[in-house]
Amino acid sequence: MAALSVAQYELVYNAFSFTIATMGAATLFFWFGRSQVSDRYKTALTITGLVTAIALYHYVRILQSWDASYDVVNGQITATGVAFNHAYRYVDWLLTVPLLLIELILVMGLSRPETWSKGVRLGLLAAVMVILGYPGEISGNPSTRWMWWALAMVPFMWIVYELFVGLGDAIAKQSEDVRRLVDTARWLTVISWSFYPVVFVFPMMGLTGGSAATAVEVGYTIADIVAKAVFGVIIYMIAVRKSELEAGTVQLARERAR
Amino acid sequence: MAALSVAQYELVYNAFSFTIATMGAATLFFWFGRSQVSDRYKTALTITGLVTAIALYHYVRILQSWDASYDVVNGQITATGVAFNHAYRYVDWLLTVPLLLIELILVMGLSRPETWSKGVRLGLLAAVMVILGYPGEISGNPSTRWMWWALAMVPFMWIVYELFVGLGDAIAKQSEDVRRLVDTARWLTVISWSFYPVVFVFPMMGLTGGSAATAVEVGYTIADIVAKAVFGVIIYMIAVRKSELEAGTVQLARERAR
Repeated sequence: MAALSVAQYELVYNAFSFTIATMGAATLFFWFGRSQVSDRYKTALTITGLVTAIALYHYVRILQSWDASYDVVNGQITATGVAFNHAYRYVDWLLTVPLLLIELILVMGLSRPETWSKGVRLGLLAAVMVILGYPGEISGNPSTRWMWWALAMVPFMWIVYELFVGLGDAIAKQSEDVRRLVDTARWLTVISWSFYPVVFVFPMMGLTGGSAATAVEVGYTIADIVAKAVFGVIIYMIAVRKSELEAGTVQLARERAR
Repeated sequence: MAALSVAQYELVYNAFSFTIATMGAATLFFWFGRSQVSDRYKTALTITGLVTAIALYHYVRILQSWDASYDVVNGQITATGVAFNHAYRYVDWLLTVPLLLIELILVMGLSRPETWSKGVRLGLLAAVMVILGYPGEISGNPSTRWMWWALAMVPFMWIVYELFVGLGDAIAKQSEDVRRLVDTARWLTVISWSFYPVVFVFPMMGLTGGSAATAVEVGYTIADIVAKAVFGVIIYMIAVRKSELEAGTVQLARERAR
């Protein structure tokens, strides 16, 4: 284990605890929101809440593992010899990253075959990206890390292409303020997801020991909050706005039919 | 206990944790889905979620038992002398495998007597299959293992026959896209269930010690995820599709009646 100062250990500890509270609150917010949107968008909010619920589970485990790795007594920190489990993050991402793209597809309200084909393609690309990152993450060798980093960037760039080019038509068909929200959602995806490959690179940039470990843990934690909870709020706003617009259209059609 | 490397121990540990997250998320997804299908299919989704909830419970116990069986400190692994409890899997299957067949029967929307007779027959066959597998699982003797394996294959083949021949008429009556989904569901059942007798055979195929233990645990875990969570998503899709079709038929009948 990296040698940490007490302040570094506590910063990471508190960041994990903050994330548990955030993910738990976000989950309940999204699931309560299900009753405020039309049936068509309920599945998007179910999945938005599942993503933060899965993250909640993993942050509880991550905090327990962090706690078990170090002892802090009388202001002195010692490593216990129990390894911190880095795999929890990758296990989490393997489930949540495909689901994040699926919630974006679902909230757009495309036709069933389009939803299916885009959901499967983006979901698989996301899973491959996470799987390719893992061998680099657990390696201490910078050139091994760079190789897997570069391989994982291929599906990442493909996802960015799909979001900006592949979804172009579907987004153009949305009403103007929905289009603005969907645009925010895809930019938020690209920007928050870009944190991960940057954080991954910290240890290859001369950051070592306690500072590297602290920067990596806090960096991934911030990225997770933005990519899952903040992103989820945008999905929620899209679902609410589209439900209102569609209810308005139905209302208008009824009035005209009279 | 088998002598494991740290990497093998951690792979199995992380596979169990991944399964806890997957089963928990799947359970909530199915139960939230209840509000999106017609009354007729709510029981199917209730049971689909019960299967993954029961699996969630058992994987929490399995992970605890795994954790108690080994200590990993300073990169060294030692068996603690506490035995890993293999029975959790069979206890789980005894409950969930009959329920899996029952959820498939329920989502087909057969007449009540047909649902009852097919549900009882397939449920009992599944329970007998699991019970016959157990004496083989806990035996270290290859010929004892083969004997119980062969006995358990009899109800297994009978179930396959029932799924493909016994349900033939009922499936032929479904609308075309529902038929495709039901077909996917029964193939997924046969293929994912086939993993179990194959994994069971690993130790009889010269795989021994840590590799055998790791292959068996990871193999059963993948099979459980496919057979319960992925299968459940197909059941959910069938329930949603049939609810929509039936709502459309009712709508049409009302319009014609005017």
